[in-house]
Amino acid sequence: MNSRNIVIITGSSRGLGKSLALSFAKSITNPLDLVLVGRSTNDLAATKNLIIENRNNLETTCKIIEADLSDLSSLPQTSELIFAQNPQHNYSNAYFLNNAGSLGRLSHIGSSDDLIDFTSAINFNITSSCYLTSEFVRRLSGLHNIEKAVVVNISSLCAIKPFPSWGIYCAGKAAREMYHQVLAQENSKNHKLRVLNYSPGPLDTEMQRQIREGENVDKEIQAIYRDMYMNNVLVDPQVSADKCLALLLSDSYESGAHIDYYNVKADGSLDL
Amino acid sequence: MNSRNIVIITGSSRGLGKSLALSFAKSITNPLDLVLVGRSTNDLAATKNLIIENRNNLETTCKIIEADLSDLSSLPQTSELIFAQNPQHNYSNAYFLNNAGSLGRLSHIGSSDDLIDFTSAINFNITSSCYLTSEFVRRLSGLHNIEKAVVVNISSLCAIKPFPSWGIYCAGKAAREMYHQVLAQENSKNHKLRVLNYSPGPLDTEMQRQIREGENVDKEIQAIYRDMYMNNVLVDPQVSADKCLALLLSDSYESGAHIDYYNVKADGSLDL
Repeated sequence: MNSRNIVIITGSSRGLGKSLALSFAKSITNPLDLVLVGRSTNDLAATKNLIIENRNNLETTCKIIEADLSDLSSLPQTSELIFAQNPQHNYSNAYFLNNAGSLGRLSHIGSSDDLIDFTSAINFNITSSCYLTSEFVRRLSGLHNIEKAVVVNISSLCAIKPFPSWGIYCAGKAAREMYHQVLAQENSKNHKLRVLNYSPGPLDTEMQRQIREGENVDKEIQAIYRDMYMNNVLVDPQVSADKCLALLLSDSYESGAHIDYYNVKADGSLDL
Repeated sequence: MNSRNIVIITGSSRGLGKSLALSFAKSITNPLDLVLVGRSTNDLAATKNLIIENRNNLETTCKIIEADLSDLSSLPQTSELIFAQNPQHNYSNAYFLNNAGSLGRLSHIGSSDDLIDFTSAINFNITSSCYLTSEFVRRLSGLHNIEKAVVVNISSLCAIKPFPSWGIYCAGKAAREMYHQVLAQENSKNHKLRVLNYSPGPLDTEMQRQIREGENVDKEIQAIYRDMYMNNVLVDPQVSADKCLALLLSDSYESGAHIDYYNVKADGSLDL
């Protein structure tokens, strides 16, 4: 019997999350159950259609879950929906792509006293994100037939380097990175559980537009990203997603490591 | 006229926060307005008494504010209380010691699905902590007569190194560290605002007791800290607080740097 894979991706309505879904759909020939989580049912349905087209009759299910992951009051129920499995599917491989995130307010620290903005960004980028990883580990990593459970935290250069006017975003990425490092440490003797902090590069997505156009973004940082856009050096999310999956399948990373897009070759090997 | 100092310390009912208050009381001979924030009015009153005894008739006020900083609904009002100033006090130096924090649940990731615990620890250690720094910067760092505004984030080795079973604590410390690094970056040309991420060492406080006695603490980590306790190598909070203040007054640190207790000499100079 072919081994069965489950792949759960948050923030898969668009951008990198959508691209990651397509990467898995193209690369995994074994039976595949995809779970796509995002804010818009319409966009998720579009991602699902793209997946189905690319599966060429390979055994596939694709569940879409519309959810606002910044709403902590509904998060336990959302988690139940996300991680519930068909008990007849004895998964050998389970992937959780912890991708959803938001920039939050981009402005210098001390320029606003808006706690609502602040809280919402932290709930979404930290609380919800870490909780869902914890839930994946609790519910899926110990399943009887699991050969490999993989958690990918979509990290950022911002997790390891401070950027002016991105205080909350940087703090969120640093928190997630550390949480996933702890997870790797806790499982240093459990080779079935693998953790990757993947920094996908400066992606040509909606987030970059917010950085280029934001009124309160630090002007020096904004100039750098506007230049990158003008000079066409932003990264295509599909190229970054394909590299991420190649890296996962090559298994060439140390569990818990922070790996940057620019250090991954197309075949998934590392160029450090 | 002597320059007037305001020193605001969160978590000053006990432990390091209380010791920091005493360090300032002993070292600053100029007029001093202390603002002590904590969970217990009784304990804060004890800290206040200790302060007053140690001021020897030097000009001093000491305001105590009982507050649960994990309660975000009351945080804006609490912030108002904390940072409100007497308009007749033209401060030349303002210090904010961002000290309050909690360990949260100590257990391996995936061993619990308790979102309430999770959220409460993040609200307290990240949201509230970062918000209060932002409020200090907004309200105090730009005052007309300010010569120096100093933010000290009480950090930890956990901000830069993952510890099994301390997932949420490590994530919180990493987030705070990064947020304060961003603040330093944003003010790299503003020499009036200084930021320190101070890692106070393994303190002989209530937190260490929780680590030694916690049922779900990683056994290897627990053994390390039990040994440190048995061998009397935990750090006295007053010794660590005195070093922190010596470091601040020596001004020998780079703004935003992570400085560990073990790298500070008694005179506040660095031994890196």
